[in-house]
This record gives sequence, C-alpha cells and structure tokens, in this order.
Amino acid sequence: MHAVIMAGGRGTRFWPRSREKKPKHLLDIVSDRTIIQETVDRIKPLVKPNNILIVTGRKHARELIRQLPEVPLKNIIIEPVGRNTAACIGLAALHIQKKAKDDVMIVLPSDHGIGDPGQYRKVIAAAARAAEKENALVTIGIEPTSPHTGFGYMEGGASAGKVSGKALLRVKSFREKPDLKQAEIFLKSGNFFWNSGMFIWKASTILNEIKHFLPDLYSGLTTINASLGKSSEAKTVSAIYKSLASVSIDYGVMEKAKDVFVIPARFGWSDVGSWDALWEISAKDKNGNAATGGSQAIFEDTGNALVYSPKKLVALIGIKDVIVVETKDALLLCKKGRSQDVKKIVDALEAGHLNHLL
Amino acid sequence: MHAVIMAGGRGTRFWPRSREKKPKHLLDIVSDRTIIQETVDRIKPLVKPNNILIVTGRKHARELIRQLPEVPLKNIIIEPVGRNTAACIGLAALHIQKKAKDDVMIVLPSDHGIGDPGQYRKVIAAAARAAEKENALVTIGIEPTSPHTGFGYMEGGASAGKVSGKALLRVKSFREKPDLKQAEIFLKSGNFFWNSGMFIWKASTILNEIKHFLPDLYSGLTTINASLGKSSEAKTVSAIYKSLASVSIDYGVMEKAKDVFVIPARFGWSDVGSWDALWEISAKDKNGNAATGGSQAIFEDTGNALVYSPKKLVALIGIKDVIVVETKDALLLCKKGRSQDVKKIVDALEAGHLNHLL
Repeated sequence: MHAVIMAGGRGTRFWPRSREKKPKHLLDIVSDRTIIQETVDRIKPLVKPNNILIVTGRKHARELIRQLPEVPLKNIIIEPVGRNTAACIGLAALHIQKKAKDDVMIVLPSDHGIGDPGQYRKVIAAAARAAEKENALVTIGIEPTSPHTGFGYMEGGASAGKVSGKALLRVKSFREKPDLKQAEIFLKSGNFFWNSGMFIWKASTILNEIKHFLPDLYSGLTTINASLGKSSEAKTVSAIYKSLASVSIDYGVMEKAKDVFVIPARFGWSDVGSWDALWEISAKDKNGNAATGGSQAIFEDTGNALVYSPKKLVALIGIKDVIVVETKDALLLCKKGRSQDVKKIVDALEAGHLNHLL
Repeated sequence: MHAVIMAGGRGTRFWPRSREKKPKHLLDIVSDRTIIQETVDRIKPLVKPNNILIVTGRKHARELIRQLPEVPLKNIIIEPVGRNTAACIGLAALHIQKKAKDDVMIVLPSDHGIGDPGQYRKVIAAAARAAEKENALVTIGIEPTSPHTGFGYMEGGASAGKVSGKALLRVKSFREKPDLKQAEIFLKSGNFFWNSGMFIWKASTILNEIKHFLPDLYSGLTTINASLGKSSEAKTVSAIYKSLASVSIDYGVMEKAKDVFVIPARFGWSDVGSWDALWEISAKDKNGNAATGGSQAIFEDTGNALVYSPKKLVALIGIKDVIVVETKDALLLCKKGRSQDVKKIVDALEAGHLNHLL
C-alpha cells in the first residue's frame, strides 16, 4: 500500500502561530510532534515510509524534509502551484504507478488530529481491502458528535456488506456544509457522516475516474506522466499545472462517480480547523482551561480558556471564554467561538502591508 | 520652597510591569517619562531641583538617580526600612532644617498623574502661601468626580478666606475609604474631597506637630538629627528606623491637629492606582480601546480594552473589557474592573517561589 499525504494548506486560521512559511500541518499545536509528523507516525504501522508520498508546495518543502527525515527525499512531490485536490491526487497516482505499477493509495489530509490511532488504522486497513477487492472509491465517514456546520456531509445508502468487520455502505449523496437546522436533522438521522477528506482507492481506479469526469486534467496528467524522471519533468509539471483548473476531488469525481463507498467510523477525529477546534481536543482542568505547548498559566476566576504561551507565564483574572496565543512577534486574544475571524486579522495585516507578520 | 517626593511604594498593583525592583513610580506607564520624572518635571517650575528631596529605599536608589540626573545626589534620602509617611516626612523635615534653617515643604507622592500641571502649580503655590502665613497644615482636596470607594475623604468646614484666589477651608473631619452608599452621599454633598496625599507646611510646623502627637517618633528624629552629616549618620538612622512604629501622617497627625486646612482643587488628578485607573486616564478610540506605550494593536469587534505591548502586535477579536499587559517574561490578561486582583497573582507567584517574576 501507498499513502499520499496532501500537505498544501495555507493555514491562516492558526495565526499568529501559522504563517505563510509555516502552515498548520508544520506546527506542534496538538502535541510535541507537528501535525504532519503525527500523521506520518500514525500511518507508519500500515505503510512503510518508503511508500509514503507527501505532496506539497515549494516553499514548505525544506521544512517538511527537516521534519520527516524517515521519508525518502524522492517521495516529496512538489506542486509548482496549488490546484486543489483533484490535481494533487492525480499527480500522486502517476508517481505510484511509475513506482509500483499499481497499488492501493490511501489519501490523507496532512493536518487532522486522531484520538484513537489504533482504531483509525483498523478502519483504513478495512477500506484498503474494500478498495482493492471492489475497484471502488472508498471514503471514511466520521460519525457526527454534534450538528457541526463547518463540514461537508455524506449520506449513507445501501449496505455493501462488511469488510474486516467494518460496515461498508454505498454513498447516497454528498452534501455541502449545512446550516444548523439541517445539521441537526443530519445528526438525528444517524445516516449522515462528516466527510473526513480521506480517500482509499487504487491508483488505476482514480485515474480512470479522472479520465472519465475530468478529461482536461487527465490530458494534463498524461503529458506530465511522459516527463516523469526526465530532465524536462519540472518544466513540464510547471507548465501543465499553471493551465489546470482548480477542482476538488469531491466535486470533480466523488459526487459524480458510481461506485463510491463509505466506512462509518469514530476514532476521535478532529479537523483541527481553528483555535476553537484545538480547545475542543485539548486536555482541560475542571474549569475548562487548557494550557498547551508547555505553557505556564495562573487561572484566577477564569474559565474555558485556551492558552498557548510556551515562553512566558500568563496570568488571567476574571476572564471567560478566551483564546490566548503568544508568539515572538504577535499576540492573539480571541473570544472563544470567534476563531473563524482570525482570518480577518490576517486580512488586516495584508492590507496594512505588515508582511513580516503573515 | 522645598519639595519632598515620597518614593517608597512597592507597586505590586502594576504587575507584570511593576516589580520589586521597579515599583510604579519608576515606570513609564502614563507617558514616555516615568511617573516620578513627571512628578519632578511638574514641580520644577515652582521648586528648583537643588531644593527637591526624594525619600526612597535602598533598592530603588540607583534607578532613581539614573532617572533624575537633575536632582543632586545629596538630595536622595535613603530610608533603611519603610516606616510609613510620618517617619518619612519627619526625616525630610530634618534635612530641610539642616539645609535651610526652615522652609515651606511641599510633600508629594511620587506616583500620581496630573492632567493640568499649570492649575496644579497654582494650587500648590497658593497652599505654600497659606502654610507660610498661617503656620498651618495645608492639604490639597480633590473635588470628587465619582463616588470612588478607594480613597480617603476630607470634609470641608468653615471658610478661612482666599489665598492667591483659591478658597481655603478648615478640615472638619477625615474619613476612611467609604462604602459606595457613603461615597455617593459625599459626592452629592459637594463638601467632601479626595485626600490627595499632598501636604504643604513649614518644616518647623510639622516637626512641632510630630513632637506633640508622636513623641516617640520625635525622640527618634532628635537622635537622627544629631547624627546628620556625621560618619555615624547611616548607622544611627538604621538603628532608629528599625525601632519606629509604622504610622501614617494622616492618622498620626492630621486627624488630630487643630489648624488643618484644605484647598479644594480640580486639575485632572489620578492616583494611577491600578491598571483600571490607567485606562481611565488614557486616550481611547471611539470604542473605548487604549493602546499605550507605543503598542500596536488591531481591535476587531473589541471594546474598552487597555493594551500595553510595546514589543509585539496584539490582535483582539470579540473581546470586551480587558486589560492586556505584555512584558518580556510575563503576560497579564485581566477583566476590566478586576485589576485590584492583580495582587492575588503576585501572591500566587510568591507562594510558588517564582521570585524571578516578582
């Protein structure tokens, strides 16, 4: 098996820790390891490092190589520009085919958190078995624990039996991020799952689907494929990528393809999509206060605070529901529940040409 | 005329900026100048630096000398231990008598803010004239602008005429810090004034009062007086000071003496007694946000914030009523209105033996 870790994110939502040069997956915001290190650590018992490919942009490659010494240099695949997940996955599939003729590829986001890695691997292994057996497109659907309006949902359809003890369902429909009312209906029904962005299929299967649903992308991939390993490779990839449309694999393939399956799962998944999401998965004291990253904090009449300040003591007095993030050149104070607005700060910095803070 | 600036405070209320080695009056929290520099700047048009005495403790003398190069070294009077204001003022009176036989002394706290220094000097000059003429104990009473429960009050009594155009009243009574109900009555009556801690009298007058009301202190001062300028001075002051009771001039003399007068005044006085008090006197934007000390801040849906962070940008999102203070080794977040609890943090640091943060 091969794993493909998509490491292209900008990660402005974790400003001031995430910066243009250090998006979320390169940060140690969940544990002592960075999120991509945890992603690699987590899949390593199933996929040896020689078979782990990382797709990333040029400006993050150096840091990524530094963080992942066990992944061979040739497995770091550079995209000259970001063109969304369909192109990223197609490019990775070419590399797998060139290396191994064909193989199951486990496509993973680089920046998610998993509470129960053992269970996670069991589900992935089952999905890989289904993908191999059925020539199917298999996804992992997270059983929702709240009416979350920030995720896409998948509706489970007819049962396709069991694989390695896990239920396999046909996907009846994909749903965009719902409003709260709709999300509550989804949660109640028990038949809707969060789209985790993890996909399991054979390289040949997904390339066939791309050929069918995204012929322009396929044509570009064909040109790239002919250049792989040659001196013209970088130039070709660069020229083709610039011409590609930006399409997600969900929209471009999954919503249209026929043989799409989901394995419903629950293994403490989090998209770690914001400071609020980080508070959710952090260890907290009885007042709901979390001090992460080795932060030293004094909480006086304070509740539901997330503090990241590894370099200096933070004292809080009479504060409720706050996120505090201290870095060497910036300090963020954000009301809990408002961390989606961190992007506004990044926008303001951009508008003010404070590029050293981006 | 001589001025005596009492610079003995610990100033834990401005943690994390105030530290054992740097109490409030040595900090530039109100402007680019430190509070004691502002105090000296403010009185200089009335009293030449050669006649300004500063009474302080040993551990702050060095920094004080650095901050006040215009004050002669011999005018820095060291108290071996703090023994409250009666001893401090008595000691300063001895120095003035030795230097100038007798003179009016203007006793000033080192750590107050004044919005209108011109008016302040007019009031002080009038008080000095009254003190000289009447052999009186003259105080400045601040006309209250709110029912403040953190100050002592003075009740104005019979008129003693005008001096340099300012009303002079006998003080009918001194009142301890009132509760809110009482403070509201004081405010409404128009006849109660905040005790500013400023006193104006001749050195001989206050020493006579001390002789009468605080004979033990007077006896100690007599011993000290005999040693002034001799090689035994430091040793004598040290021995006597250790034996002195800690008594405030208000309690020890003012509340008991007969010829006590007050000049009611309004010149933008603030005791700068806490971070909350600092917010009150700071320039604010239309949402009530103050960024002091050259701090750079982005206020997104934020109101009534006080930000001190000269070294790094602070971004606030959805935060109401907060005090944010960033120093090189500590960060304070305090709900506005709760800054009296900063002392609890200092206590916690003391209990935790985090002495480097004190």
